[in-house]
Amino acid sequence: MSVLFPRLLVAGVGLVGGSLAAAVRRAKLAGEVVGLGRSQENLDTALARGHVDRVSRDPETAAADVDAIVLGAPLGECAPLAARLRARARPGTLLTDVGSAKARLVPALEDAWRGVGPVVGAHPIAGREDSGAKAADPKLFENRLCILTPTTATDRAALARVRALWEGVGARVEELAPDVHDEILARVSHLPHLVAYALSAAIRGRSVGSHALVDYTGTGFQDTTRIAKSPPAMWRDIAFANASALGAALGEFRAALGRIEAALAAGDAAGLEAALAEAQAVRLALKEER
Amino acid sequence: MSVLFPRLLVAGVGLVGGSLAAAVRRAKLAGEVVGLGRSQENLDTALARGHVDRVSRDPETAAADVDAIVLGAPLGECAPLAARLRARARPGTLLTDVGSAKARLVPALEDAWRGVGPVVGAHPIAGREDSGAKAADPKLFENRLCILTPTTATDRAALARVRALWEGVGARVEELAPDVHDEILARVSHLPHLVAYALSAAIRGRSVGSHALVDYTGTGFQDTTRIAKSPPAMWRDIAFANASALGAALGEFRAALGRIEAALAAGDAAGLEAALAEAQAVRLALKEER
Repeated sequence: MSVLFPRLLVAGVGLVGGSLAAAVRRAKLAGEVVGLGRSQENLDTALARGHVDRVSRDPETAAADVDAIVLGAPLGECAPLAARLRARARPGTLLTDVGSAKARLVPALEDAWRGVGPVVGAHPIAGREDSGAKAADPKLFENRLCILTPTTATDRAALARVRALWEGVGARVEELAPDVHDEILARVSHLPHLVAYALSAAIRGRSVGSHALVDYTGTGFQDTTRIAKSPPAMWRDIAFANASALGAALGEFRAALGRIEAALAAGDAAGLEAALAEAQAVRLALKEER
Repeated sequence: MSVLFPRLLVAGVGLVGGSLAAAVRRAKLAGEVVGLGRSQENLDTALARGHVDRVSRDPETAAADVDAIVLGAPLGECAPLAARLRARARPGTLLTDVGSAKARLVPALEDAWRGVGPVVGAHPIAGREDSGAKAADPKLFENRLCILTPTTATDRAALARVRALWEGVGARVEELAPDVHDEILARVSHLPHLVAYALSAAIRGRSVGSHALVDYTGTGFQDTTRIAKSPPAMWRDIAFANASALGAALGEFRAALGRIEAALAAGDAAGLEAALAEAQAVRLALKEER
């Protein structure tokens, strides 16, 4: 694989940014990978593990001598961070990101980066409930989908370079308009997160007699709520960034649950079994990722 | 471990019954383990894997020469099956089960077995989404909880033997009244199953433009819906057997989801983050089982 970027800045070396930095170094896709962050401890971890060549805590200085920047910061911090990074960024510097909601973020990044260089929205679908540089893994993106979200403003050469970056770390790349991306992710990712949080919250502090419910959860409950271990501030940002589509997805979920609940309440055995069987068929047909 | 039962009949050698039969044989808790079933293919699998000593498809004959019977059949079939088994059962034959809902089943089994021998309700919390003898595993119950549900009618010596059976296959045993068991399981098991089915059903046949949602599910969606792979008829029976507690649990879940949804709709960032953080704390505190 040839070098795509002489010098790449990864702003935010948490799970996704750190994993990308590590994968880029391993595949030699950049001459140098610089990690930007606020937590010295997290930066030290990334450096100690060899996921970056060097680290910085100063956005202005870090942006001054790179060819491309990947925003790996929490969703709500990406646009403000881009505004700081532009102060000393070199003309032509490519800006991309890994955010989980795109319809608001991509135009915001295009605004923040106007006059500096090209912007390409990207979202690797490879989350985990763990977070931070300690959870980073250069193999995180292998065989996973990465969605690029070009707009009418997107530079085609920059789009091709970002595609090469993700394909270079093992991802399958697909392009979707930002709003299409958000409508899809609302249903396959953002909704399940809120549902998992709600399932956990529903047993909070609750007992039957002297028996606390938390002492009786088995693997079923634990699988179903695993993603409720994800960072709350991150999912707060994602939920607000995709509030409209997520609201619609919540309505669709409530309708599906309501159909099951109505069959149960009505004593409709055939109706309940049919609803469960249709749901099972959907789940059995999914191509498993692990 | 000494032999608890000279001859044990396991009626239904699917995932749970088959795993118990295999574990009993491995720990030499019974002189002989007989597998009863309707599907010759499933029985052949259990026999070929050495999970049972011999097999039968005839309930009356199979019940005639055993000391104890474990009902491993689907919940809705347990009481009718007990009524058939009693025809030729020897006086004193112990009857126990592995059903996921107890408040209706245990009295029904006590009725069906009246005048034959003692009845002890049991529920090992060790399900998996796979089913059938091919999924059976003698280690399924190791370090898992098995809840026994004695009633005022329960014979203490029989209860002790069933406790020894489950402890002998590696389970931790706890005793709860049937209705307490059902109130707990409604929330930690039955509710998550219905929610997982509803999440799967909510994406059924749905597309955004030409993009089918099923093509975009990642590990988050797949973890959250894993238990929706479970057999629909089995979960139909469990849901109806515990309809009242499950209805209450659904209400609690809707309230928890409603709080999240309301914060999202109101643009209440602090409220949403607080709700997610409380839910995360519950999930992080669970003792993981794998």
